[in-house]
Amino acid sequence: KTEIERRQSVLRTKMEDLDAGVFLSFTNSYYISGVPILPWGRPTITIIPKSNDPVIIAGKADAQNISSNSPIKNVITYGDIEGPNVNEAISHLANELKRLGLRKIGVDGYYTPMAYVELLREKYPDCRIDDITGPIEGMRLINSAEEIDIIRIATEIADYGMQTYLSQANLGMTEIEMAGRVTLAMAKFAASKYPDMGITFNCYSQQGIHSLEPHAAASGHPLTPGQLMCVVVEASVAHYMAAVERTVGLGDIRPDQQHYFEAVVSSLQKTIEKCTPGTPMSEVDKVAQTVFRDAGYENFLCGTGLSRGLLNSFEGRIDKSNLRVYNNNPLRPNMVLSIEPYAIAPGVGAQRHCEMVLITETGNEVLSQAPNGFLRID
Amino acid sequence: KTEIERRQSVLRTKMEDLDAGVFLSFTNSYYISGVPILPWGRPTITIIPKSNDPVIIAGKADAQNISSNSPIKNVITYGDIEGPNVNEAISHLANELKRLGLRKIGVDGYYTPMAYVELLREKYPDCRIDDITGPIEGMRLINSAEEIDIIRIATEIADYGMQTYLSQANLGMTEIEMAGRVTLAMAKFAASKYPDMGITFNCYSQQGIHSLEPHAAASGHPLTPGQLMCVVVEASVAHYMAAVERTVGLGDIRPDQQHYFEAVVSSLQKTIEKCTPGTPMSEVDKVAQTVFRDAGYENFLCGTGLSRGLLNSFEGRIDKSNLRVYNNNPLRPNMVLSIEPYAIAPGVGAQRHCEMVLITETGNEVLSQAPNGFLRID
Repeated sequence: KTEIERRQSVLRTKMEDLDAGVFLSFTNSYYISGVPILPWGRPTITIIPKSNDPVIIAGKADAQNISSNSPIKNVITYGDIEGPNVNEAISHLANELKRLGLRKIGVDGYYTPMAYVELLREKYPDCRIDDITGPIEGMRLINSAEEIDIIRIATEIADYGMQTYLSQANLGMTEIEMAGRVTLAMAKFAASKYPDMGITFNCYSQQGIHSLEPHAAASGHPLTPGQLMCVVVEASVAHYMAAVERTVGLGDIRPDQQHYFEAVVSSLQKTIEKCTPGTPMSEVDKVAQTVFRDAGYENFLCGTGLSRGLLNSFEGRIDKSNLRVYNNNPLRPNMVLSIEPYAIAPGVGAQRHCEMVLITETGNEVLSQAPNGFLRID
Repeated sequence: KTEIERRQSVLRTKMEDLDAGVFLSFTNSYYISGVPILPWGRPTITIIPKSNDPVIIAGKADAQNISSNSPIKNVITYGDIEGPNVNEAISHLANELKRLGLRKIGVDGYYTPMAYVELLREKYPDCRIDDITGPIEGMRLINSAEEIDIIRIATEIADYGMQTYLSQANLGMTEIEMAGRVTLAMAKFAASKYPDMGITFNCYSQQGIHSLEPHAAASGHPLTPGQLMCVVVEASVAHYMAAVERTVGLGDIRPDQQHYFEAVVSSLQKTIEKCTPGTPMSEVDKVAQTVFRDAGYENFLCGTGLSRGLLNSFEGRIDKSNLRVYNNNPLRPNMVLSIEPYAIAPGVGAQRHCEMVLITETGNEVLSQAPNGFLRID
């Protein structure tokens, strides 16, 4: 609760001439209120006025959730009975802004649908609406001690899943069965150690050139010798996501596969060494690219990593923290990034190791513990 | 591919004076292009001009994904190297709209962030941008034969998970371990029967008044006698989501719990009977409310169900198909809805059974097969 109040007061210092920050997305509303409410068509809106107390507008079903998880006491709920949810939520928002005399607001425009904003303009034409995605994202980049603890737990669970994968997988087992086993193992581990936390798990793998199809689900195909495979294990604790990914050789691999594998292992080491406070993010990405170019791989899909924490496939990725050649923002203490350099290796795939790395005052700490060298499954 | 071309030609008939439909969301871009690309910060945009060929703009990493899954041949990809993804994607969009002479476009405004639209206006000020969420949602409500097949498979897998839960759970086991076991069982089942489909699984449970906290993850707490528990099993096949949910008594339950359980079972039966083509959705919800009111429960959080299919927690819910007292839209053949009536029972919770129901030409077909009466775990 102290933490939430701290976030709100930092936000207030960034409001400039605005009367309030208004957060309509899952990610930012959760970040600033403390209560995670997945949308399912029902907007949750947190209003942080510059000088009044904050207000949450949410579906009626979440009243208990709000009172257990947020220090915010002014709660307006809407039911499903009165009318369409978006219209209900935005009507309450317009009324509350009027009641509090808030005429200049900032919203998180990179996450808020155009239709919500147009509806608000219709219901409250005198309100000026700016985009304050930048300031709220800037805050989210630097984790508090409490957030780092959560990310550590998520990483510990993902690590446990990866260790399970590496010790139980054999050639011939199907990808999806291994994914299921790993999920069960993580669930048991989490249940015994962190029974009170809301945790979700994900595991999949991609063999050979299937690794070029990003973020796919595990398939029913067996682990087949003679390929590199990328194993992905993710755990989200209170919606803070950690990812641990490993490249493994399935049985004996060809020389071209081994050559690419060497670049993966070497680039990981060198990029992690480069992760120190003050270093421009572009420099980290360049180190990775140099290793791959020297090994003969010229084709890059992505940068070397991104900010981890409050993140899911639909929301939360912050461009300012993407490790890419054009991004000269410096690394700063208490950022947590995934370091996952890779390239496209023709005929081999685009496998990688992915580590969770915390930037410290003096350098970095690698949070994930699973082995990250030349791994093999037989 | 025929199916995607059919969707595009139906859409063209709904464009009125617009030059193109432009879909910037995961859900609608996938629906109209055939290629599912989760965002992770990189917009995928599908342009359906009224008279030219369609165009996809997407991250470079998805080039292979697009060529395997979409009949659309005009593909513009952007890398992570050039600059921030949103800026890259919207720049390509503005250029392509100009090149094709498209000056009046419709976007899916209920899903598209305000910042994306403002960026497009900046880069292409002469373009008129309308909201065509209504027409595209109207199309998605009525499933094709192919979509119904996918939903049947998702339901079959969720059913298998629920059967596993009901046959393996015992008092004292933790919620999260059971969730993990069920996930593994679904994974093995899916791997053997549908090895080529991208499938994800979810299972959690909520005991007693925890059922008032919607959509929570499973906890590490044991199944404790003397409560009603709601078990939720979900499977998504190619992002089409089926949900099968069951209320179970844990050991011996109190008379007030049994009384509520009877209302759950009876309201489910009566609402399903009401699901026939032409019936206003409000009527279905009213039937459910009547059963609960007659049993003494006056407090409703939600309506009785919603359209299922292309749906996830962030996108896809279509208000026009929510079963709620204010919604007089009629049921129509080939809609698939979840039927899940419930109320708040003080001191008991808000448990429910949830069935997947297909509206047919003459009535309905219940797709889920798991038993839906008075279930018990000892």
